[in-house]
Amino acid sequence: MNKILKHAALGTVALAACGAQAQSSVTVAGMADAAVRSVSNQGVGSVKSLVSGSNSTSRIIIRGVEDLGGGMSASFWLEHGLALDTGAAAQATQFWDRRSTVSLSGKSWGEVRAGRDFVPTYVGWSRFDPFGHIGAAGSNNFATATPNGPIRSAFGTNPNTTVRANNALQYFLPAGLGGLEGSLMLAAGEGGAVASGLTKVTGLRLGWAGGGYGLSVATATSENSLTTAGKFKDTAIGGNATLGSLRLTAAWRKFEQNAAEQTNVMVGAIYSMGQSDIKFSYLKANMAGRVGTTVIDANDATQMGLGYIYNLSKRSALYTHYARISNKGAATFVVPGGPAGIGGGKTSTGYEAGLRHTF
Amino acid sequence: MNKILKHAALGTVALAACGAQAQSSVTVAGMADAAVRSVSNQGVGSVKSLVSGSNSTSRIIIRGVEDLGGGMSASFWLEHGLALDTGAAAQATQFWDRRSTVSLSGKSWGEVRAGRDFVPTYVGWSRFDPFGHIGAAGSNNFATATPNGPIRSAFGTNPNTTVRANNALQYFLPAGLGGLEGSLMLAAGEGGAVASGLTKVTGLRLGWAGGGYGLSVATATSENSLTTAGKFKDTAIGGNATLGSLRLTAAWRKFEQNAAEQTNVMVGAIYSMGQSDIKFSYLKANMAGRVGTTVIDANDATQMGLGYIYNLSKRSALYTHYARISNKGAATFVVPGGPAGIGGGKTSTGYEAGLRHTF
Amino acid sequence: MNKILKHAALGTVALAACGAQAQSSVTVAGMADAAVRSVSNQGVGSVKSLVSGSNSTSRIIIRGVEDLGGGMSASFWLEHGLALDTGAAAQATQFWDRRSTVSLSGKSWGEVRAGRDFVPTYVGWSRFDPFGHIGAAGSNNFATATPNGPIRSAFGTNPNTTVRANNALQYFLPAGLGGLEGSLMLAAGEGGAVASGLTKVTGLRLGWAGGGYGLSVATATSENSLTTAGKFKDTAIGGNATLGSLRLTAAWRKFEQNAAEQTNVMVGAIYSMGQSDIKFSYLKANMAGRVGTTVIDANDATQMGLGYIYNLSKRSALYTHYARISNKGAATFVVPGGPAGIGGGKTSTGYEAGLRHTF
Repeated sequence: MNKILKHAALGTVALAACGAQAQSSVTVAGMADAAVRSVSNQGVGSVKSLVSGSNSTSRIIIRGVEDLGGGMSASFWLEHGLALDTGAAAQATQFWDRRSTVSLSGKSWGEVRAGRDFVPTYVGWSRFDPFGHIGAAGSNNFATATPNGPIRSAFGTNPNTTVRANNALQYFLPAGLGGLEGSLMLAAGEGGAVASGLTKVTGLRLGWAGGGYGLSVATATSENSLTTAGKFKDTAIGGNATLGSLRLTAAWRKFEQNAAEQTNVMVGAIYSMGQSDIKFSYLKANMAGRVGTTVIDANDATQMGLGYIYNLSKRSALYTHYARISNKGAATFVVPGGPAGIGGGKTSTGYEAGLRHTF
Repeated sequence: MNKILKHAALGTVALAACGAQAQSSVTVAGMADAAVRSVSNQGVGSVKSLVSGSNSTSRIIIRGVEDLGGGMSASFWLEHGLALDTGAAAQATQFWDRRSTVSLSGKSWGEVRAGRDFVPTYVGWSRFDPFGHIGAAGSNNFATATPNGPIRSAFGTNPNTTVRANNALQYFLPAGLGGLEGSLMLAAGEGGAVASGLTKVTGLRLGWAGGGYGLSVATATSENSLTTAGKFKDTAIGGNATLGSLRLTAAWRKFEQNAAEQTNVMVGAIYSMGQSDIKFSYLKANMAGRVGTTVIDANDATQMGLGYIYNLSKRSALYTHYARISNKGAATFVVPGGPAGIGGGKTSTGYEAGLRHTF
Repeated sequence: MNKILKHAALGTVALAACGAQAQSSVTVAGMADAAVRSVSNQGVGSVKSLVSGSNSTSRIIIRGVEDLGGGMSASFWLEHGLALDTGAAAQATQFWDRRSTVSLSGKSWGEVRAGRDFVPTYVGWSRFDPFGHIGAAGSNNFATATPNGPIRSAFGTNPNTTVRANNALQYFLPAGLGGLEGSLMLAAGEGGAVASGLTKVTGLRLGWAGGGYGLSVATATSENSLTTAGKFKDTAIGGNATLGSLRLTAAWRKFEQNAAEQTNVMVGAIYSMGQSDIKFSYLKANMAGRVGTTVIDANDATQMGLGYIYNLSKRSALYTHYARISNKGAATFVVPGGPAGIGGGKTSTGYEAGLRHTF
């Protein structure tokens, strides 16, 4: 067995055998990311912790592609999230929580993909967040079920579809349409309860990318055992422009459920010089309307994020992030990892320093 | 990316070491399979869903063999089942639920294998099912704890030993005995409760395969904390004959516990032409005797299965399956994935279309 | 390392890239170990079982190293424990329970490591146990929460830090200090409950190894939601000497919590001849002081262990172990796997025979 192996792409390794008949490959890849974090919540104190995945979510990916000939290919992707600080699976039961899909693709007609994956609106929002929707300063801090708003109203504290959906069938436009990109998602509700992760989703995304500019429009509608009084609607619009070493982004996302609305607005910037990246983001969450009879208009919040990343290589980086959330009214958004029990309208501040390694 | 890849064997990739000293290999292999399914249960409606593993169970395998010299080898096999539709582990706690074994083998004397694995009767039945005991039309639909019969009586709704057993020690005859094959299983009950997956099993299989024909006889006896009034007996007999492009199979399996009996009979056919396979199966479940004082004689059922598989390559296939179950008496066998609450004696119908990819 | 990887160390396989551009590697390695065991507990009978990991814990490791140039490297290590007898994950939620770390290392200054890992005192004890702290005759039999003593007092039956700690930041001395080795651990308590695996740990180890001799001194202090009346202290001192084919070891470890003390003393020997190893160990657990108002002084125990290992290759071995535990007073230490309910002061005896395969 004279196997000679070569790695497929940066940060991934093809686990493969060599030779003329080359037909298959399995790639084991992933991310190991840990940081020291300190979070202060006004009025309740501060907590120091070791956290996982602040620059890039700690994960293991097992994936592969088979060339079927004639421009066709079959592929699969299994991605497991983990907490590097404790060794815990991000989801014990839903082990491959980050993605589990099988696809049939054609160079001319695109890709049909089945399984758990990102919803189109998440794709059309997170790409415009300099912090990638994670860590102390990620925009995920404003996409939670706490405080009460349309997300809590539509899903309770059960799994929601603001990031991913189970039981999804997707179609993706092919590459090579002059920058045009797009996808369609239909996820089966299967007549079950949202507590079992079952939500029916219909979603769509259209975008354009090229020449240093990008634009994306996406929408998704979710229906489950809790949305009997009205579907959950999620709309995301965003754009980016690259000016030399500076990448600027802006995005808007609205969650709606019955009379409750939450509108998130974000502007971001990444400035790169040599091995360093400097990141900035500013977010605003605007609550409006009512949940039941409770008026939520006053429960807004803003978040300011700063980051400095020092790239040791293309695969590894040291980083530090800072975030400050200012709540108004009854809003209780927080930087994750602080002490519980923050009061409405208070401030949450966090910073972290860590190491991210891509494998 | 000038990857030069060679797959070690169909659908598997050897993750191997380079150079002359290479002595070992770890293989990561598996299956990604998803389908759209619709199931109608008479009187209660229908459900559409995305399902996993209808043509071949979605899984990840990590395995390897070490050549010890002199015809001897050591090997291991870890196999994890997963639900591709949701990313869930098939069993969160029993993660390597499909197989976890270590073996010592000798070319002349066979193999001693320790760990969780298939019971001999399952091996001697499932190989004769054109649908491989899975999916809408698999014979697994008639090997369940519902409705009440010997399986339910011996195991309740706890893990049963109709497919696999924990804590097993097995011996396998070596290859090269002119077609003769066989195995012996002893699984320790460990004095524990069936709710903890503990069942003592004694099993045996003898078979012959070659020249287009095959025959297998297997038996297994299970004893656990619920079988105090009598052991659970499982007997499977089957055969196959290949006539040109046509493979015909027939099998018989009987489950017994005290006064309760369930006899499953199956005939099957696979016709291959070019890249296509057409599959057919007919099953009958015959209940007899009593569970406690409840007479179960009338609770029989039949299942008819049809399938069409289009092989895109040796590793990937598109497929569609159809199944119809007709219950009698109080029998409530169903095609999986339909709405709950079917009444006794009703009909369950399902069809599905999907993609199976071997990696 | 110019990235043509053979297997990095005995029993592992580098899944690696060959050729000039090669920059990365992921290694999948591990252990598959199963044995037949019988344990008799005086007064309550005996149980036969199949067990996992008696010679070396069954596990899967995914790890890799990236050369950053200038003597620096980034690396990660994920290690999952499993029960080969049943296919169960050792910890369903804490899947990567054995280790989950990311590191930055420099040849001149050492290593900074973040994540779940061994505590320094465990490292400074287990290396002197001929049975590696596992199996029928391992010294782990005397480091349990039963019977009541300082471990139970400080952790209840929750996860304890006698082996590993979550949320740890560690520093390791570099190699090449003439045999000197050492590490420092700070694990964050994160203000949480010990039931969630949260314990603050401060630990330190210093050792010297070389020329056939070794010495290690380690200490660790743990603080959690149960140690409000006083921290848990753990001290381990050990040494070894190699005399030709004979390796002799001696070690001492003390657990303290408030007025309760447990002192474990161990002497061990491994004699190697050809493909065979003979192992011997003698342990004594000495309880002293009180837990609450209960005096535990009389609850001591001794364990005698014998082992014979036949190495089939450098990666695979057949083995057999024997252990006998003699309890005094209310002590109820047992060889794992026997029937429940042993009385205080009784004897527990176990033997096992198995196969260990390194991959």
